[in-house]
Amino acid sequence: MVTAPAVEVLDDEIGVANAEAFRRLDVADPWVVDVATARDVIPGYDENLVLTSGAPMPWTEYVGGQREALIGGALFEGLAASRDEAVAKFASGAIRIGACHDYSAVGSLAGIYTASMPVFVVENRAHGNIGFCNFYEGKEPRRLNYGCYDEGVHERLLHVNTVLAPVVGEAIRRTGGVPLKSLIARALRMGDEVHSRNAAASMLFNREILPAVLDMVHDEVPGVRETMVHLAENDYFFLRLSMAAAKVTADAMAVPRSTLVSAMAFSCRGFAIKLAGLGDRWFEGPPPVHEGKLFAGHTEDEITWMGGESPITETVGLGGFAQACALTLQEYQGGSAEVMIERNRQMYDITHGESSTYRIPLFDFRGTPTAIDARKVLETGTTPVMDVGLAGRDGGQIGAGIIRAPRECFEAAMAAFEASA
Amino acid sequence: MVTAPAVEVLDDEIGVANAEAFRRLDVADPWVVDVATARDVIPGYDENLVLTSGAPMPWTEYVGGQREALIGGALFEGLAASRDEAVAKFASGAIRIGACHDYSAVGSLAGIYTASMPVFVVENRAHGNIGFCNFYEGKEPRRLNYGCYDEGVHERLLHVNTVLAPVVGEAIRRTGGVPLKSLIARALRMGDEVHSRNAAASMLFNREILPAVLDMVHDEVPGVRETMVHLAENDYFFLRLSMAAAKVTADAMAVPRSTLVSAMAFSCRGFAIKLAGLGDRWFEGPPPVHEGKLFAGHTEDEITWMGGESPITETVGLGGFAQACALTLQEYQGGSAEVMIERNRQMYDITHGESSTYRIPLFDFRGTPTAIDARKVLETGTTPVMDVGLAGRDGGQIGAGIIRAPRECFEAAMAAFEASA
Repeated sequence: MVTAPAVEVLDDEIGVANAEAFRRLDVADPWVVDVATARDVIPGYDENLVLTSGAPMPWTEYVGGQREALIGGALFEGLAASRDEAVAKFASGAIRIGACHDYSAVGSLAGIYTASMPVFVVENRAHGNIGFCNFYEGKEPRRLNYGCYDEGVHERLLHVNTVLAPVVGEAIRRTGGVPLKSLIARALRMGDEVHSRNAAASMLFNREILPAVLDMVHDEVPGVRETMVHLAENDYFFLRLSMAAAKVTADAMAVPRSTLVSAMAFSCRGFAIKLAGLGDRWFEGPPPVHEGKLFAGHTEDEITWMGGESPITETVGLGGFAQACALTLQEYQGGSAEVMIERNRQMYDITHGESSTYRIPLFDFRGTPTAIDARKVLETGTTPVMDVGLAGRDGGQIGAGIIRAPRECFEAAMAAFEASA
Repeated sequence: MVTAPAVEVLDDEIGVANAEAFRRLDVADPWVVDVATARDVIPGYDENLVLTSGAPMPWTEYVGGQREALIGGALFEGLAASRDEAVAKFASGAIRIGACHDYSAVGSLAGIYTASMPVFVVENRAHGNIGFCNFYEGKEPRRLNYGCYDEGVHERLLHVNTVLAPVVGEAIRRTGGVPLKSLIARALRMGDEVHSRNAAASMLFNREILPAVLDMVHDEVPGVRETMVHLAENDYFFLRLSMAAAKVTADAMAVPRSTLVSAMAFSCRGFAIKLAGLGDRWFEGPPPVHEGKLFAGHTEDEITWMGGESPITETVGLGGFAQACALTLQEYQGGSAEVMIERNRQMYDITHGESSTYRIPLFDFRGTPTAIDARKVLETGTTPVMDVGLAGRDGGQIGAGIIRAPRECFEAAMAAFEASA
């Protein structure tokens, strides 16, 4: 990139900042060390706080499935006895809404957290920061995070709180924590990209905690058999761990003057990104562009946006940036092997470097394209690709596919960056 | 393939035979249903019988590591008190040598079976036949099947007999058997080709038996924790199951006038194949041609042949015929992704059809090239490729790589085939 002398100094400063932000991303060392209740471990978590995905917005901006999910969260937590009461309390501020990212957390789809929900506690041992993600609700398409709340959703969430999470937490503690970086690297060699495909990572995680689990059965800890069978049957279980691992990795990137992207997320209103050099500011754009494959019986016009922060995985060089590892996703989200490979290759054009740990066998173990440089997105016109689940307007998952972050976010971010120089 | 009228009738007869042999291969439904002692389940197994890999040969033809392995087997089983006694008894016939394949079994490398060894019992539920494979000895490079026998080898074999096999057997029986075909199909989507890479298949198998295992811990069955930790740490464990599954699949192919290959194996003397249309006859050639990657500290001139029947996996469209599923093998056996993909594609030129179950994500889920047609090998000059471990002349595994079946086997087979017309 040749630039005029006046900009060269600035560019060099950016180069140094980006190198440091990239280094921090690349050396991150995420470990899951515990499962605990949100109110007990997330700093600043109040009883009346509900977290949700995307850049923070006032209550009135939350519409459709994301609004339904917030209401469902309030009802689940007992913050309101009825829908109407929940709506009134959100409107008055008696129930507060927070953005997951502001609480070192990341949310899947609508990304609802309430005070009693168990969360994975993930430490970045290279940088010292901590992050969180709550639990996968299970395979049922009707889930709180897909804008649904009914008796079944309530029961499944309660089951997570009272059975699954306590068992998994004890297994993690007895194991002494589980290092996630090497586990993810291994999963990439086994057909996962740890965003829309987590089959291998889930099994690898179960394998890590197996000795502790066997001891727990021996010690007659309740719920162990049921929990392990549930884990064995839920290939998506690990996503919440890859998200938390990615969050603590990306949060370590904060370096003034860096143009690298440190977060990508969306709400019902639109997509948003953060830059490593611009602190907690979000730069918003319209909803993402998508290309997907719908489950039988659903149509394109049903697709709706109700939030999503799993693109934190792409932010650190996983998910869509590693999709050449997970060609089996063709079946789930459409496309062909060739298209997936080409899409993955494109991401090298917009990233700062290549992961020294996460590698792609098909590319002769080249590291995954890692750390999106907002400048390169604008220069090339290539936007980041993400593998996601697709939500339907009546709630529930109706398909899966890829989305592209809108260019507007990068334009807004670089305009702010230049203004801050 | 256009042929002269005189041959057309014959060719049509072959076409019908090959279609039927292929169909039987393709619909095979292998289940592992038990672990039992060789003497108890392998038909015709006498106390003084030692099985080994490859076409059967007289004792004097077994040299090097394969001879050492036979002697080790005799000592392990207590058929002789010393090396000299073992040699004398083999020479006199007091200890008998059998070819694994003649006993519905397949052996890894030297492929030693003795009467007390536990074997997986695999049923082909589509055809009604049964096959066997004994257990993986573990990661230690010094193994009986690599021509080594010492105190450590003895201890590890005994541990298999007394701890690992009984636990795995009980878990399989409690589970009601484990269907292997769908499991292998899934493993191919997770980076395995179930010959030189079995990481996913091993985990998937452990997952299948997990509920039974948890019950066994609860019931205080001895050795369960130790066995499951051993299984979790041994990614190669499943190979013996994929071999037995492949054996019952290939054994179902016996159809008069078929030119499809129903077995490939080698001994210290050379490579050999069987045709589905020519019963139990072996057609021999020189040792295979190889291309490999050696473990640190070893050299090319150390490579030696001491037997191998794991190419039964390639016989049914797995292993080298599915290596585009397992590009991670580059690290283990050398080569590049591009070479592995091209090699896999070549196999379509010499096979009768494509598997309806075993599919390659990289090829947009095209079925693996399946059922080698000896005629096509001669027509194209392309020989079957196999992923194998490489043995050293002083015993032990010294590397891994690919081998090619020698053309001479196919020439001999087709000459016999034409003579039998």
